[in-house]
Formats: sequence, structure tokens, C-alpha cells
Amino acid sequence: MTTTLSRAEIDALDKRHRTNFINGLTGFKGVTLLGTRSESGCSNLAIMSSAFHVGAAPPLIGLLLRPHTVPRHSLENLSARGEYTLNGVDRTMVERAHRSSARWPREVSEFDACGFTEEHTAAVDAPYVAESPIAIALTLAERHTLLNETVLIVGEVREVRLREDVRAEDGQLDLGALGLVVAVGLDEYHDTRRLTRLPYARVDDG
Amino acid sequence: MTTTLSRAEIDALDKRHRTNFINGLTGFKGVTLLGTRSESGCSNLAIMSSAFHVGAAPPLIGLLLRPHTVPRHSLENLSARGEYTLNGVDRTMVERAHRSSARWPREVSEFDACGFTEEHTAAVDAPYVAESPIAIALTLAERHTLLNETVLIVGEVREVRLREDVRAEDGQLDLGALGLVVAVGLDEYHDTRRLTRLPYARVDDG
Repeated sequence: MTTTLSRAEIDALDKRHRTNFINGLTGFKGVTLLGTRSESGCSNLAIMSSAFHVGAAPPLIGLLLRPHTVPRHSLENLSARGEYTLNGVDRTMVERAHRSSARWPREVSEFDACGFTEEHTAAVDAPYVAESPIAIALTLAERHTLLNETVLIVGEVREVRLREDVRAEDGQLDLGALGLVVAVGLDEYHDTRRLTRLPYARVDDG
Repeated sequence: MTTTLSRAEIDALDKRHRTNFINGLTGFKGVTLLGTRSESGCSNLAIMSSAFHVGAAPPLIGLLLRPHTVPRHSLENLSARGEYTLNGVDRTMVERAHRSSARWPREVSEFDACGFTEEHTAAVDAPYVAESPIAIALTLAERHTLLNETVLIVGEVREVRLREDVRAEDGQLDLGALGLVVAVGLDEYHDTRRLTRLPYARVDDG
């Protein structure tokens, strides 16, 4: 049976219920760890489910940040330095990655607090998560403030690190083999099972 | 073994390879059908993997559109009317939803071409997909053009239609029970399997 919720009914939900409900509406979300460094040099990690593809040439990735909730340190670091990493989260990393959402003090590195290992390359001045099976280094390219004061960051890809056996001839990544998870709302995690890969759709098919 | 691709190596990939590769970097993506109506009244559907949560109060959802590639009719309709629907895609809908990405002429309704049923309510002047287990009606609230000419649409939720047995006491949606799929890149689809739901993370845990 289908039920319909009007906007008035949605607005009347209690705050926690509405937050969980609205967070789930757009379906499953990819999960990444945002790596940054503060001006004083402290490493920071924050779990995010708002990274999305913006374009391939130049390679651009979007990320939505909510300044009034948790990733405030991340946004400050990212704004100050303009460099960051996005690190994929696999099955083995879920519990540790979720811990990064606690309100750790500014001087605590979530790498230490959550049990991850920092890795650095010359590409950007921000830490990679060594445990992550796929990770991207980015520089801040553009920033938009949306009507509810959330901040959209668009970053340009500088470098990609990944397991070398997961890129097909045509560039497709085997995200299942990487064990990447997806999230529902703020706290539920799933892994995936491949159903199908479909050919390019044409009007004269079938 | 981990491999590293520099930006120069990424830019040197052939176009199709780079498109698939960059599209996969941010991990799995939720899949929705964007429903709109043209000024002359023709219904339009386009498969999208760029819808994302923006906020819960007011309830806002973002959607990235690439005007120079397929969903041109959708963007024109959406801009003209300011009303649209986002309809979740489950396992049984994947092949039909993927067909909506073909370059159907403006006067053809993808509902007919792909085998979906239109449904209308008073909330917005845009068609719902009756087969979809969860669907949202939205009005255009804000629009940003990003540096690569993609367009970010932020919409305000007007109504939600869903199976009535999938919303928990605390508002969490059972997206697994809905059978919603996730996408890799442009053409690969997975379903999911629940791993865990974790408690709110606190600094003094464990």
C-alpha cells in the first residue's frame, strides 16, 4: 500500500524523525572520508555521504558541507588550504569511519582517534587514508552557498590512488571488488551485489 | 597493489575511458527518474544519478544536470514550469529506466517509450512514475551554474509517496525492502545488502 505525506505532514514530524526520513529520500549514498590539514598542521577526517560526480574533463567532484553541524573543522581547513582528499570506505572500515563523526576536539587527529593511517604524496597538502582502496586528491576550484547555508565545494582532481586490478579496459571501476559501502541516512551501511551492466541506450532498440 | 594516476595521466586517457573512470571515483550512486512536463504538455522522464540530500528543515534536495548531454528536455521543462518529481528505481525497473537515457524526440513521452505509468496528484504539475516504490514532488527553489556549465538545481519537497510499511518509528527508511538500486558510472547497477546500523558516535565511546 502506498501512503502520501504532504509538506505540512513532513514539517510536523519531530526533528529526529524528519531528519532520518528526509535523509533517506534520495536513496543510497556513497560514503567517503574527507581528509584535511589545519593551519597548525593537525590532520582531520570526517565521514561524508555527499560527494558527487560533476564532470570528467576537467575532472571535477562536488561535496556538500553543513557548516552548522559536524564537519566545521573540515570546512575551515579546506577553506584555509584549498586542498583535501576523498577516501572511499570499504566494509572493513565502516565502524572506524563512523567514529569520525563524533565531536572530536580540534587538536585531536581523527586518524589516531579512529585507527586509520595517514599517507602523504606530493600532490596535495592533505592526508590520504592508507587503508582506503580508492582515494582522490583535490584542490578547491569553486564554492557556492546554498539557500539553507550549506556549502557546495567543487574540487578539481589532482591525483587518484587505487587498487591496480579494478580498472577495466574501458575505464569502468569494479567498485564491488573494492568492497565500497553505501549509506542510508546518517548511520546505516550496506554493501552491494552486481545486477547488470547495460549497453548504451538507443531509440531504435527493442 | 596500489597504483597512482597523476592528473596528467588522467587527462591523457581516451575520452570514453576517462568518462567511465571519473564517473566511478565517488563510489556508488543512488538512481532516480526525473519526471517533468513540457510547456505543450508532453511528459518526460530521464534517469539521473545525481540527486542528493541538501537539508531536512526545510526539506531540500539537490540535482545536478548536464545541459550539453542528455537531459536537455528535462532541464528546459523544469526551468519553464519549476515543478518536477524524483522517483526511486528498484530492481524491477532497471532496464526500463536505463532506456530513458536514449535520445528520444521531444514529442515522445518516455513513459510510453520505456513502459512506465504516469500518476498525478495536486502537489505539482509533473508526472510521478506509478511503478516507483518511493517518489518525491518538488518545486524549484534555486539554481547555480557550476564552472563546467553543469547546472545545480535545488528543489523544495512538496510531497512524498512511498510504501507505507518501510518507515521506522524514528523515520529511518528501509531502502533495502524497497529494492532500490545503486549505479556505477553510466550503465552498471547493483542492489544492496544491509551490513549494520551504528549508534550516534561520541568521543567517549570505546
